[in-house]
Amino acid sequence: VSLDSVDTPALLVDDSRLDRNIRLMAQLCQQHGRKLRPHIKTHKTLEIARRQRDSGAVGLTVAKLGEAEVYAAAGFDDLLVCYPIVGPLKLARLAALARRVTVSTVVDDAGAARELSAAMTAAGVRLDVLLKLDVGMHRVGVAAGEVEPLAAAVAALPGLRLRGVCIHEGSVYGEPDPARRRAVGRDQVQQLVATAERLRDRGLPIDVVSCGSTPSLADVIDIDGLTEVRPGNYVFYDAMQVALGVVEAERCALSVLTTVVSRGGADHAIVDAGAKTLSLDRGAHGLGLLADYGRIVGRDDVKLASLSEEHGWLKLSKEASLSVGERLRVLPNHACAVVNNVDKMTVVRDSEPVGEWDIAARGQVT
Amino acid sequence: VSLDSVDTPALLVDDSRLDRNIRLMAQLCQQHGRKLRPHIKTHKTLEIARRQRDSGAVGLTVAKLGEAEVYAAAGFDDLLVCYPIVGPLKLARLAALARRVTVSTVVDDAGAARELSAAMTAAGVRLDVLLKLDVGMHRVGVAAGEVEPLAAAVAALPGLRLRGVCIHEGSVYGEPDPARRRAVGRDQVQQLVATAERLRDRGLPIDVVSCGSTPSLADVIDIDGLTEVRPGNYVFYDAMQVALGVVEAERCALSVLTTVVSRGGADHAIVDAGAKTLSLDRGAHGLGLLADYGRIVGRDDVKLASLSEEHGWLKLSKEASLSVGERLRVLPNHACAVVNNVDKMTVVRDSEPVGEWDIAARGQVT
Repeated sequence: VSLDSVDTPALLVDDSRLDRNIRLMAQLCQQHGRKLRPHIKTHKTLEIARRQRDSGAVGLTVAKLGEAEVYAAAGFDDLLVCYPIVGPLKLARLAALARRVTVSTVVDDAGAARELSAAMTAAGVRLDVLLKLDVGMHRVGVAAGEVEPLAAAVAALPGLRLRGVCIHEGSVYGEPDPARRRAVGRDQVQQLVATAERLRDRGLPIDVVSCGSTPSLADVIDIDGLTEVRPGNYVFYDAMQVALGVVEAERCALSVLTTVVSRGGADHAIVDAGAKTLSLDRGAHGLGLLADYGRIVGRDDVKLASLSEEHGWLKLSKEASLSVGERLRVLPNHACAVVNNVDKMTVVRDSEPVGEWDIAARGQVT
Repeated sequence: VSLDSVDTPALLVDDSRLDRNIRLMAQLCQQHGRKLRPHIKTHKTLEIARRQRDSGAVGLTVAKLGEAEVYAAAGFDDLLVCYPIVGPLKLARLAALARRVTVSTVVDDAGAARELSAAMTAAGVRLDVLLKLDVGMHRVGVAAGEVEPLAAAVAALPGLRLRGVCIHEGSVYGEPDPARRRAVGRDQVQQLVATAERLRDRGLPIDVVSCGSTPSLADVIDIDGLTEVRPGNYVFYDAMQVALGVVEAERCALSVLTTVVSRGGADHAIVDAGAKTLSLDRGAHGLGLLADYGRIVGRDDVKLASLSEEHGWLKLSKEASLSVGERLRVLPNHACAVVNNVDKMTVVRDSEPVGEWDIAARGQVT
């Protein structure tokens, strides 16, 4: 069986690269004595999560309750919903989930914490919570000046058990210079650790000190006081990570197989992977890090310069030759975004398809 | 039942606006004696396609064979796969489909046409084909100078029946000025019609003269010689169409219900709809028409300024007040892209949810 049996566009996962990425991250965490709680947002499959668990992950991180429900149903029993849970519908779902598996979540707001407390108390459960801190990204998270009163308030609320503090040091995606990125990542994690110390000094029980972001991971993992990391992207990596210098392209485990469907004169060609497969991401968090919409593997003479919904527009250099029917592989800019678009990925070993994985938690938007 | 029963983020379809959009387009086509073959890429549901059929659509347009297979299985029996079909896997699927329903496709390349011919001949079917023309968008489509030899070649191929010519006048998405957009749309459709005439003069059977693009539709529908239109977006419209001046925001039938999950000081707030729901589209075909990532309905004091995967970053004006738990509705930039991200949409009538539609053809990437 060859890849000719796989229709395009198709997501291909290189099985040995995937395994290596999972193993190296697990080893790095073990060497530094950090717990690894990978974020499943990148792959949304059960199979890859099982490999992460088998290699030593203590549990999983998810963004959406629906994702937690899918993983809980599949036997994953330690889940951090690293997203503020707001509103009666979600609070009821979270309480139901907390009765079945070990689930924890984050808070960054006193009012939301009180509602969480009331819902858990009414359901007769006690939920572990982390304070989500804003250490520079200015997305979710409590600002530095408000951490201590919020921590004290959460610690006093019934139905909740304050366990620790966490950040997403996603600002590092905006720092292509490695030295500067390292400085930003370390500064943010040092703020995290310092906050944990300050809360402990106040007598609050801060056991979990957790950060998470693939590009910063190697830069920050040695920082004393960090207990847990939550990278997601590292299972696949992607053109964004390559552009940031986090890994070489040869480490990237996800690619998109695509077919040339039209030749439009000497300067361009069209492939059957467009924005509805590849996404329009050119950087995390809306950053425009990358000029193109993916890298054509092994073809420096061809650029993926623009995407319509179902068309990829290839700009050809003068020497480039491409025919209708020819297949190319695209290293996507942002693996997490590509996985969100499709239902399946094909597992490839030595250039042969050896299986297909459902993207089981795709579409769990709530 | 109120919208409080719908968890967020959620796609809401305003039932009466949807019906009105479908009805007005059907009437416009009828008035001008044009056949309407709507593109389902925008909604990917069976329910909306049934309404389009019931209001007089002669058939459907799809981009992907997998979409055609879904619609064929649901009883839609006249389908144009308006995308070059390339490669043995797709040719076999197309032949199988052509045995069950009336299916047609497009060609823009002599080699691809020969392979299509061979596959259809081997399968014992005769397939209607349209020549796809490039009249200015430079995506797929045969260039003006090559139309006649390609048409003659296709007309002579066994297993194929040349039926007409078609374009997607998508360049109009790059023309925010209405007069200029009208000129571009009319020019492209006039090229289409002129090409049809030229081919007829050569004795070729050109019955179908088909264009398709929502923003140009009203500008071009009166052009003599046009027989069919294939708009897609008009069932919902979106912020892009509003920005182009095609419709008022009050015509838009799709919105995304979202919840404020975090307040980050006075200047921003975070909602639970990010790029994995709203997409990063700021214009069709990769154009950056819009500054923001969606419009907050009824809230001029709040801008959706940035998206992470699962976070929408709202920039608040000085007077704006927003609380955690508050719900907002987003008019998405690009309805077609949003629908591609989720599995269901909630049907709303008089602000009450009255049903839920599966996005049945979502994920049919091949």
